[in-house]
Amino acid sequence: MSAPLRIAIAGLGTVGVGVIKMIRRHAALIEARTGRTVEIVAVSARSKDKDRGVPLSGYAWEDDPVAMATREDVDVFVELMGGSDGPAKAATKAALAAGKDVVTANKAMLALHGQALGETAEAAGKVLRFEAAVAGGIPVIKALTEGLAGNEMTRVMGVMNGTCNYILTRMESAGLPYDEVFAEADALGYLEADPTLDVGGIDAGHKLSLLSSIAFGTQVDFPGVELEGIDRITIEDIRQAADMGYKIKLLGVAQLTGRGLEQRMSPCLVPDTSPLGQLDGGTNMVVLEGSDVGQIVLRGAGAGEGPTASAVMSDILDIARGTRLSTFGQPATSLTKSQPARAVTAAPYYLRMQLVDKPGALAKVAAILGEAGISIDRMRQYGHDEETAPVLIVTHKTTRADIDAALKDFEATDAVSGAPVTLRIEAV
Amino acid sequence: MSAPLRIAIAGLGTVGVGVIKMIRRHAALIEARTGRTVEIVAVSARSKDKDRGVPLSGYAWEDDPVAMATREDVDVFVELMGGSDGPAKAATKAALAAGKDVVTANKAMLALHGQALGETAEAAGKVLRFEAAVAGGIPVIKALTEGLAGNEMTRVMGVMNGTCNYILTRMESAGLPYDEVFAEADALGYLEADPTLDVGGIDAGHKLSLLSSIAFGTQVDFPGVELEGIDRITIEDIRQAADMGYKIKLLGVAQLTGRGLEQRMSPCLVPDTSPLGQLDGGTNMVVLEGSDVGQIVLRGAGAGEGPTASAVMSDILDIARGTRLSTFGQPATSLTKSQPARAVTAAPYYLRMQLVDKPGALAKVAAILGEAGISIDRMRQYGHDEETAPVLIVTHKTTRADIDAALKDFEATDAVSGAPVTLRIEAV
Repeated sequence: MSAPLRIAIAGLGTVGVGVIKMIRRHAALIEARTGRTVEIVAVSARSKDKDRGVPLSGYAWEDDPVAMATREDVDVFVELMGGSDGPAKAATKAALAAGKDVVTANKAMLALHGQALGETAEAAGKVLRFEAAVAGGIPVIKALTEGLAGNEMTRVMGVMNGTCNYILTRMESAGLPYDEVFAEADALGYLEADPTLDVGGIDAGHKLSLLSSIAFGTQVDFPGVELEGIDRITIEDIRQAADMGYKIKLLGVAQLTGRGLEQRMSPCLVPDTSPLGQLDGGTNMVVLEGSDVGQIVLRGAGAGEGPTASAVMSDILDIARGTRLSTFGQPATSLTKSQPARAVTAAPYYLRMQLVDKPGALAKVAAILGEAGISIDRMRQYGHDEETAPVLIVTHKTTRADIDAALKDFEATDAVSGAPVTLRIEAV
Repeated sequence: MSAPLRIAIAGLGTVGVGVIKMIRRHAALIEARTGRTVEIVAVSARSKDKDRGVPLSGYAWEDDPVAMATREDVDVFVELMGGSDGPAKAATKAALAAGKDVVTANKAMLALHGQALGETAEAAGKVLRFEAAVAGGIPVIKALTEGLAGNEMTRVMGVMNGTCNYILTRMESAGLPYDEVFAEADALGYLEADPTLDVGGIDAGHKLSLLSSIAFGTQVDFPGVELEGIDRITIEDIRQAADMGYKIKLLGVAQLTGRGLEQRMSPCLVPDTSPLGQLDGGTNMVVLEGSDVGQIVLRGAGAGEGPTASAVMSDILDIARGTRLSTFGQPATSLTKSQPARAVTAAPYYLRMQLVDKPGALAKVAAILGEAGISIDRMRQYGHDEETAPVLIVTHKTTRADIDAALKDFEATDAVSGAPVTLRIEAV
């Protein structure tokens, strides 16, 4: 029997409380599986007196997470406060400097500072693990870093924000407009304090940038993620997509192309019969494609107390068992700087625009697409209100650059009112 | 840079050749990810002169895998010969005794001798890993042993024999009878030399018994797996199931009940909209359910050169990185002996029988079910040939014991011709 693994937990929200519950409930099982006990030495949170439904009196209380991170009697600092900077980052750095291993669920911090923190950890001979930062309970960091380590990864995709998937699914099933479902999600407490983190694709973009780094051996490049939120998706888009056999998902796609690293987090059309198309509600799905393994699909709860705590525990138990890995699967100093590439791979696109209701408008649109080298797979003009007529176009395979050129030309005509909605169609 | 990891590969079939290719193709990537090189020192197979499409001249050739397993210059013995006993087992034991780590894809050997081999490995301080033994490229052993290690596992399910899933899917899509599709699969080389390994559920049962051991901390108990093959499934069963919204899958289910460990590998009806129901062709799917994480679904190729080699590589690279785990996730000596429990959990059942075409036969069937305490959800009698009429019954939730009692009573009447087909309906 080895010595107990002594941990300190900063942040006692849903996930922190979930971790405490798992350690208390599954003590025997943890000992059987790791050969040692996991002991909570100290905890820290904003408010000491709040009732969190778990007894905390057996643990030292620290008001200051930085002070807790450097305690002599701590082996692993578990960072569950969140926030890309501030106390989370300060405490993580302090813990590594003091020779502690760190487990975190903080995707924002790693998306922005992962490279520096990874280098710090490795210089100190410590590990910095983050299974809970991506796709909740799905052990995707482990699958990618270890399970598929013999593969050259070719593409990584995922629906990794349960709130967005809930909103899109609910819009479709209830036939409700975006604003109404957004308000519902807000009332249910599904949204972050700053909802653009969810609906703007930022949170999911953070996660994608972490997967990219492991998959392609590149430095985390969150600013290189082409971000587009779901707030412009209308019930009309969802209906038209469904009518053509597609669902709309906030989909992340990362792949290394000859022109650089393509990272996109944007609403896309996916076939409704594909695993991604069938993903309803708050569930997450990650698709990993490798040179030899082909396509692996992982599905599970992307958030919530139990699933996220399960992922944190996986990292803690790895450390208890003596498993020690580089933060992004290879030494941080060996990760290459990638060149961001904006959607260079070709795909069909879905365009929905408001045509100004006067003769020749549709001809102008068709001419512009033709000039941009974009060929039309199907076009549909349908029931319209006063001044404008909605037109829906599905193109054959084309590039984002050609679409952008056409959009620019639309702006310069008087044929189209406002900016068209453009959604990529991903064959998955 | 650590010293190279020196491996020896016994068995140069599809998987062995796949491993050699991956090591040759991805040398730089392996070094980046593990901090060392993986070097093939020696290989062994039945025939030295066969052209396998990869150059072998750089590796020592050994006719005897046992001799190879004990070579001084080998760190890891990679067993890809197959067969539960014979050279595979002898070489594995020899390798462990000689202080080598062992990586194997051999489910039959582990299903029958896993406990003894696990104890041997751990007594010698060596690891025995087997990611490739279950569900091909899907990193399910890692997910279960490590990724979900903080959970008390509640249920493990899976479609883990691609050949059976191919046969069932093809019967449905082409409307062909079992025998014809079986012959097709045989011609395509999808079947094992002894096809009952596949269609009898034995191969998939081996895999289930390995997952059970890790999930529940019990000694591998393959004889405790209730096995039923797919050879009695008719195109009529598939059509009737489809008509009611189900697909028929060779499904493994393991769960620890109050009365023991229930392990079943049998054709079941699953909802056609569920992830398992939507699994077509040779793809595998494993469903892992844990106390905290909820349900995790993993999907990928269950066989083939690349996927299986990818799983073998995962184990080799773990060893290269210094990750060392017990064979079944906790010391083999700490695994408990489980009591096998035959399908004690209740479920609806599908029964198809040939009713003897004379007055009162249906009444007798209904009476027998009533006496066994089985209530009928739906019953259907349909178009029939000469002497017998096919009748299909879907029951409400009942137990296997009650179904067995009813089957026994059917035998004793003259109302039913032959043995009814009984399939469990699994809500997944």
